[in-house]
Amino acid sequence: METMIDGDVVAKENELRAKNLQSDFNALGEQLGRRGIDINAILAKVEAFGVAIPSWGVGTGGTRFARFPGEGEPRDVFDKIEDCAVIQQLTQATPTVSLHIPWDKADPQRLKQAAARFGLRFDAMNSNTFSDAADQSHSYKFGSLSSADAATRRQAIEHNIECIEIGKEIGSKALTIWIGDGSNFPGQVNFGKSFERYLDAVRSIYEELPDDWRLFTEHKMYEPAFYSTVVQDWGTNYIIAKETGDRAFCLVDLGHHAPNVNIEMIVSRLIQFGKLGGFHFNDSKYGDDDLDAGSIDPYRLFLVFNELVDAELSGAKDFDPAHMLDQSHNVTDPIESLMMSAIEVQRAYATALLVDRKALAGYQESNDALMATQTLKTAFRTDVEPILAMARQKAGGAIDPVATYRASFYRKKVAAERPAVASGGGGIV
Amino acid sequence: METMIDGDVVAKENELRAKNLQSDFNALGEQLGRRGIDINAILAKVEAFGVAIPSWGVGTGGTRFARFPGEGEPRDVFDKIEDCAVIQQLTQATPTVSLHIPWDKADPQRLKQAAARFGLRFDAMNSNTFSDAADQSHSYKFGSLSSADAATRRQAIEHNIECIEIGKEIGSKALTIWIGDGSNFPGQVNFGKSFERYLDAVRSIYEELPDDWRLFTEHKMYEPAFYSTVVQDWGTNYIIAKETGDRAFCLVDLGHHAPNVNIEMIVSRLIQFGKLGGFHFNDSKYGDDDLDAGSIDPYRLFLVFNELVDAELSGAKDFDPAHMLDQSHNVTDPIESLMMSAIEVQRAYATALLVDRKALAGYQESNDALMATQTLKTAFRTDVEPILAMARQKAGGAIDPVATYRASFYRKKVAAERPAVASGGGGIV
Amino acid sequence: METMIDGDVVAKENELRAKNLQSDFNALGEQLGRRGIDINAILAKVEAFGVAIPSWGVGTGGTRFARFPGEGEPRDVFDKIEDCAVIQQLTQATPTVSLHIPWDKADPQRLKQAAARFGLRFDAMNSNTFSDAADQSHSYKFGSLSSADAATRRQAIEHNIECIEIGKEIGSKALTIWIGDGSNFPGQVNFGKSFERYLDAVRSIYEELPDDWRLFTEHKMYEPAFYSTVVQDWGTNYIIAKETGDRAFCLVDLGHHAPNVNIEMIVSRLIQFGKLGGFHFNDSKYGDDDLDAGSIDPYRLFLVFNELVDAELSGAKDFDPAHMLDQSHNVTDPIESLMMSAIEVQRAYATALLVDRKALAGYQESNDALMATQTLKTAFRTDVEPILAMARQKAGGAIDPVATYRASFYRKKVAAERPAVASGGGGIV
Amino acid sequence: METMIDGDVVAKENELRAKNLQSDFNALGEQLGRRGIDINAILAKVEAFGVAIPSWGVGTGGTRFARFPGEGEPRDVFDKIEDCAVIQQLTQATPTVSLHIPWDKADPQRLKQAAARFGLRFDAMNSNTFSDAADQSHSYKFGSLSSADAATRRQAIEHNIECIEIGKEIGSKALTIWIGDGSNFPGQVNFGKSFERYLDAVRSIYEELPDDWRLFTEHKMYEPAFYSTVVQDWGTNYIIAKETGDRAFCLVDLGHHAPNVNIEMIVSRLIQFGKLGGFHFNDSKYGDDDLDAGSIDPYRLFLVFNELVDAELSGAKDFDPAHMLDQSHNVTDPIESLMMSAIEVQRAYATALLVDRKALAGYQESNDALMATQTLKTAFRTDVEPILAMARQKAGGAIDPVATYRASFYRKKVAAERPAVASGGGGIV
Repeated sequence: METMIDGDVVAKENELRAKNLQSDFNALGEQLGRRGIDINAILAKVEAFGVAIPSWGVGTGGTRFARFPGEGEPRDVFDKIEDCAVIQQLTQATPTVSLHIPWDKADPQRLKQAAARFGLRFDAMNSNTFSDAADQSHSYKFGSLSSADAATRRQAIEHNIECIEIGKEIGSKALTIWIGDGSNFPGQVNFGKSFERYLDAVRSIYEELPDDWRLFTEHKMYEPAFYSTVVQDWGTNYIIAKETGDRAFCLVDLGHHAPNVNIEMIVSRLIQFGKLGGFHFNDSKYGDDDLDAGSIDPYRLFLVFNELVDAELSGAKDFDPAHMLDQSHNVTDPIESLMMSAIEVQRAYATALLVDRKALAGYQESNDALMATQTLKTAFRTDVEPILAMARQKAGGAIDPVATYRASFYRKKVAAERPAVASGGGGIV
Repeated sequence: METMIDGDVVAKENELRAKNLQSDFNALGEQLGRRGIDINAILAKVEAFGVAIPSWGVGTGGTRFARFPGEGEPRDVFDKIEDCAVIQQLTQATPTVSLHIPWDKADPQRLKQAAARFGLRFDAMNSNTFSDAADQSHSYKFGSLSSADAATRRQAIEHNIECIEIGKEIGSKALTIWIGDGSNFPGQVNFGKSFERYLDAVRSIYEELPDDWRLFTEHKMYEPAFYSTVVQDWGTNYIIAKETGDRAFCLVDLGHHAPNVNIEMIVSRLIQFGKLGGFHFNDSKYGDDDLDAGSIDPYRLFLVFNELVDAELSGAKDFDPAHMLDQSHNVTDPIESLMMSAIEVQRAYATALLVDRKALAGYQESNDALMATQTLKTAFRTDVEPILAMARQKAGGAIDPVATYRASFYRKKVAAERPAVASGGGGIV
Repeated sequence: METMIDGDVVAKENELRAKNLQSDFNALGEQLGRRGIDINAILAKVEAFGVAIPSWGVGTGGTRFARFPGEGEPRDVFDKIEDCAVIQQLTQATPTVSLHIPWDKADPQRLKQAAARFGLRFDAMNSNTFSDAADQSHSYKFGSLSSADAATRRQAIEHNIECIEIGKEIGSKALTIWIGDGSNFPGQVNFGKSFERYLDAVRSIYEELPDDWRLFTEHKMYEPAFYSTVVQDWGTNYIIAKETGDRAFCLVDLGHHAPNVNIEMIVSRLIQFGKLGGFHFNDSKYGDDDLDAGSIDPYRLFLVFNELVDAELSGAKDFDPAHMLDQSHNVTDPIESLMMSAIEVQRAYATALLVDRKALAGYQESNDALMATQTLKTAFRTDVEPILAMARQKAGGAIDPVATYRASFYRKKVAAERPAVASGGGGIV
Repeated sequence: METMIDGDVVAKENELRAKNLQSDFNALGEQLGRRGIDINAILAKVEAFGVAIPSWGVGTGGTRFARFPGEGEPRDVFDKIEDCAVIQQLTQATPTVSLHIPWDKADPQRLKQAAARFGLRFDAMNSNTFSDAADQSHSYKFGSLSSADAATRRQAIEHNIECIEIGKEIGSKALTIWIGDGSNFPGQVNFGKSFERYLDAVRSIYEELPDDWRLFTEHKMYEPAFYSTVVQDWGTNYIIAKETGDRAFCLVDLGHHAPNVNIEMIVSRLIQFGKLGGFHFNDSKYGDDDLDAGSIDPYRLFLVFNELVDAELSGAKDFDPAHMLDQSHNVTDPIESLMMSAIEVQRAYATALLVDRKALAGYQESNDALMATQTLKTAFRTDVEPILAMARQKAGGAIDPVATYRASFYRKKVAAERPAVASGGGGIV
């Protein structure tokens, strides 16, 4: 299997840190042992955990005000796959890539080969009916799957079916639908009729879904629509999954909720009613900020994983959530942000595994709120970095992925091949 | 039929205003006529519209910091019914009263007679498992219908059944359940288990529901629980109604949502899926502020009624929403606030009736967002006060209810009979 | 003076509506007369009221996800001035245009002539250091006036001074500074140091401000920075104005605040301490949605004007607020949206003029909260459209601007000359 | 010096944990040593750190819906001081108590003696003009320091002066003013006039402030007022401190801000302009939830302390923040919650001390956002519990305060002496 970064660089960087890692790992192992936890069991779970990289995440993001490009940005899906390979090589936590059509449209065989070179696989396919492609007949300015115009809806349905077709060829097993449909003015759309049209359209797509695929629909409170959004919250998303079929599930993006909403509770509800499809991980302080996972509120991310681990251990029905990052990297090197974010997601998982669930259940039964919450806090504040680093090292990744990445001068090297992109924005305000 | 305020006072006050009212009514009628609207058809609809008064609303409210009592506060449910009679006499918009058990517990026959004196009827019954009554065996400190303790749940179920029993005797046809169950700390309760227990408990209550009754469950984002709430949003509320049965519906309180949430869209979704039970009308700027309906964002109230009128005119299935005020009057005379609030709700209804729905549908079809929203705005900014005042006058109410109420010196009179209550608060912070 | 739309079209459209307008105006005049208000005094105030059009507002806006262009979009600042002339011709409420540099950079003499053709003048100049221009030496990716890099700050200062220089030649009397500086990650910037640098930079710009100019700084909670923003709220903005000098004032954009914030109170505070510079009017439901003024919460806009009228009538010190629209028109014809928005701002002003301020002060003194708020509501719900339409008609504008605009086929005509622009977005996510 | 809990209980419980604590302390010391940090220097700082207990915090709190009392609640200020003594004995982190007048009014000499028994001192005095005391002449229903009524304002001023007088006798050095003044309806109060009255009243209080005292004013977005609040945010609070005098400072309660607001940035601004007085620590998810410090978003608490440590190390002018808890304990034993909250505040301080500030400054200079934020995260995720526990043990406190407290059966013992209080609420809704 190929690697984008020379194995010697990784080995040399790891050598600098291996001894201290072992010492920290041992100290943590001893402490966990006292708490009745086998550090190697946790290590094994972490090793088996993966999160998908969105192909669009390796490019520099932006806002409606501007985009400030980075050096050596990927020119096409094949460059993107190479960047994803770097992330996986160093973190060993991101074995899959999630494509976006039409941005990543290419010959499926070439796509498969490009991924196979690095041992990567393809996660959920993502359709795009929130912007107009150069050649399309009908504009999505006033909606796509919920458009008042039948031909526009048909076009959007067919685009989704095309995504399934491509996905089938490259080994994907899911389609994720996120649309921007909604309105900017009270009265602009009829809520009921537009949701009916949306449901009909999703059913048409679902009919084309292979038996071993799942359909993920994603809700979002607002943006790009600023008064109403067709799939605005988990309540609507749940109805969609329920009305569509057994293989239809809800996707939760952590940044798509109203202020103050208890997201971990939504996750619990979707688990309970068998409709949790998966996640778009990121973090946010205000709106759909698409910041790095765990960078703003790491405890919230832990609380989400607390629900996931609880479901995993209790054998919840239809529970098999897809994990994907979905972030916009405006001021960092996207490869670095994605590496650290994948590790943050792993960290949330690892700390959630440390929760003493028997004790917790007891405190819940006896209404001992203080000890219940301390049980979570004790797990959360355990520094599991030695476990995560050990998992990376064991799999051939980097103990310190960012330092190793910088030592490799990968970005400089690709910048030499990939021409600089002009600054953008300035017109969309 | 008796009245609390002397009919001569009303007549005298109306006399002062009747001529101008007629003149304004005529001018508006002419203007509406030009827009193709028959003012008398609107008048008839307004005359038929009513909103229930919550018995607890006629007392002065407060916050956890303090309660500043008003003059002449009702001492018991019979005083409350008299105050409600004043509201109905002057507004002719509030023919029903909604009781709260145990606060309003009394001999059902006496209750019926007390209401019948003034031609009032009883709306939905409200149970209370969010505070402990003096004599109860199990505390609701850690939950009621979702409590981890079976005996506590049983007690809460039985209390709700008792509310149904009382309601049956006094002619009520619905039970409203709002609970404060939830948690203040991550980990305090298991989300899934506590919701299961809640669902089981609601099913037990539903089994006792008479065939011609409806069950309303009410969601609320937070308060009194500050980390998680069992029935936290419309998504959960919808699941409850769906899992419970055909006569289970969702109640929407306008102040119970996350910041920025599009409430009119939630109303539309519940209508579309046959689960809108009714409303607790009020207004809010921050949390569950329980301010007077329409006092903060009157356009939002109009947009809610825009959905209701649309459903009424299009014959939506299972559509028969209950209208009730639910407010806390901390700095005004509750009777005055409730009169003005009932009128605000009527006003939202009347203006929503003015929407040119044929034109609106056309603009929606052709994506003419600007004209669609102007169609709503044109209706909203029409000053329908002459219609509302004319409806009151025709039915024997007051053209200007507040002025008439003040001219009657009702508050002074009852203050002489009802002893002053001491200031409260100061301990609950 | 030239007009973009044939005067005959306007005359013909007005003829259709003049009689009914007169009748509605008379009826309203009679009703207001009864309330002690002279309709002609209000009319005179409305006639004297104007709001500036932002040059960038006449182009179709977009989001980071996509931009869906409209027909006949302006190609340059001269096309934009022609579109602004249409808005002013029909509404007679928008006598000035606010330019944005570098987007509107052109020979100042040509700019003056272009505006003079239509009797337009220039309002505040707007600088841009939130995106990179093609030719600039230093990128604003990591900040502009607050950048850690001195050369970048110097460049940003000089750009602002250039804006002043252009403004001096075309008759502007104010500079508005809005920057996107901030951070996306905790720790990325040092809050204190970066604010110090910002203050130093603003002082350098202020030194170049002509004596008869004012400097407006604008705060915004978030976007494009998603963790912290240097000028994040009115508190920081007030400190800036205070630390900078007597001609430094705060600009309030209605969409730049945290959820639930009481904006009219901020307006009052800035008036009280002599630091209100003016407004960017628009409306929002979620974030900085830049929707049409008054389209989401018209009562809030009224409450802002209630403060402005109160200050105007009470002769508040240093009170001379600049009025400007700042909106993004993604789904409407920008000319139509800007016309209706200017009229909405006028409407808020006109209704605020109707408030019975003597009665209001009395109710405030006696803590009669109910009558105080009803005093505002009575003014708000008065339909002043006849006054606004009469003001337009008298000045040669259109009684119904949108209908008249559509009847003129202006958009079709310019679309024939202005080539279609390709759809955008799809890369910035 | 007396203790409320037998020293033997503490010793016995500590014995069970001392060996493991030493082992964890050593392992952490070694790890920190590798990072260039002397664990004993951090330990010394933690030992010197204290946070005040609010006297009202040791009673069970409630909401407007209900209060569910706990066992053995304190009957008066002397019981409260005993409970505070327990907290200090076990945590050694809470050497002071903050009193609330009139709730804690008693003979000053007895108060001093009661505190001296346990080596406790008195922190800031808190006045109460948000509720009516039994004997007062004028009600605060419509405001206190900002009331439209001069006699009411005078009464409120005199109450604050009385608080100063009591404080002088018991060794307090600060007065904290929080008022509930505001309005529930648009128009109810005149924003400008009511703020002028407030400023005048505060100046009158300030005139009576001893030279070595500080005045703290506290802002809050809403509650108990639900439309506008006189001291609504830090901007207004800053103006108050600025207009009042050199010894007037702003108090920051973490739960008193609008949704999504960046609180650590407000802290930085107040530090920068010399007006940070101190804190009311707690946590919140929705409104002013008054939950245990660090229980909802521990990273936010860390980020606040990151600013405080930065100011401490850089010698910011006038920087001497007062630390106080201000929480409502509705479902836990208040003593347990206060102990854990004091420790959480200590923890935030200790982890903030671990930040590599030289590296951070370098990353900020070079715009290395990723490494800057990782520098904070590395400190935050270090589990400093061994340092905190060691500080407690060294000072004679408990390694595990909650376990030790439970082992002492303190609550059971006082419950035997302190009669049960009846359940409350049920009237204030």
